[in-house]
Amino acid sequence: MSVKTMEDLFVATLKDIYYAEKQILKALPGMISKADNAALKKALENHRTETEGQVERLEKVFQLVDVPDRGKKCEAIEGIIGEAKEHMGEIENERVLDAGIISSAQAVEHYEICRYGTLIEWAKDLGYTEAAKLLAQTLDEERNADTLLTKIARGSVNKDAEAA
Amino acid sequence: MSVKTMEDLFVATLKDIYYAEKQILKALPGMISKADNAALKKALENHRTETEGQVERLEKVFQLVDVPDRGKKCEAIEGIIGEAKEHMGEIENERVLDAGIISSAQAVEHYEICRYGTLIEWAKDLGYTEAAKLLAQTLDEERNADTLLTKIARGSVNKDAEAA
Repeated sequence: MSVKTMEDLFVATLKDIYYAEKQILKALPGMISKADNAALKKALENHRTETEGQVERLEKVFQLVDVPDRGKKCEAIEGIIGEAKEHMGEIENERVLDAGIISSAQAVEHYEICRYGTLIEWAKDLGYTEAAKLLAQTLDEERNADTLLTKIARGSVNKDAEAA
Repeated sequence: MSVKTMEDLFVATLKDIYYAEKQILKALPGMISKADNAALKKALENHRTETEGQVERLEKVFQLVDVPDRGKKCEAIEGIIGEAKEHMGEIENERVLDAGIISSAQAVEHYEICRYGTLIEWAKDLGYTEAAKLLAQTLDEERNADTLLTKIARGSVNKDAEAA
């Protein structure tokens, strides 16, 4: 793929995060089934539903910029999810595993937070006001998901893991 | 590697970020040489020096927790850096390339921000007060680097890329 303009770079990054969101949708069930803490399980389940909405929102953004909604292999999310699976496979205690799942889920959230942050800036610069608003809704959801995971870690998961 | 306790998980994540910082040190010169905008080039150069200090700080943390300072292959940072190189290779216009470099550098920063955030929480829980302080210094630097990159993007890079 050749990128010559900011429009091309915006579309390439849109395809990157579209691919990433779909990979995240595939990875979440494995994390949900391994999570033991009830609040963590519920937060991940809610986030899976939210992620489905984020994929649909991206499809609306593709429509707004008049580009077919196709993903582009995102090496970064493959690495982040691959590492999450590897870490989950190494942890033998289920309380410690919950802390590890939160850590992995937050690595995923931060990747998304940064990509959506960039896309919003570029969308505004390119005059895609409506697309920028949609992307900002997703960014809010990702930030809230990250904050909730920190609360769950501090609330019970880390203390339980500590005592395990 | 088998992870049974929070102590094990903390050490595994410390090894992960130690490996990641060293990979970032290797990747930064390529990004610096490709950056055209003077403010961006300077920010990346400063961050390379800062990263050398962060590696040394991690070595102090290893000493504090009495574990040899050895990295552990971090699939996530390999993916993030691999994607950064791929993106940089695809961009044909140097103004647009600057915007792409900022986007890639912020993906790296966000990975670090999330890992240091997690390590600080765990260090505090494990009673590693001094290690937590050192890790918090690095987290501040990473957050500042990320904020500076956003400022540079908003200040000139994105507008220049837009006009390219």
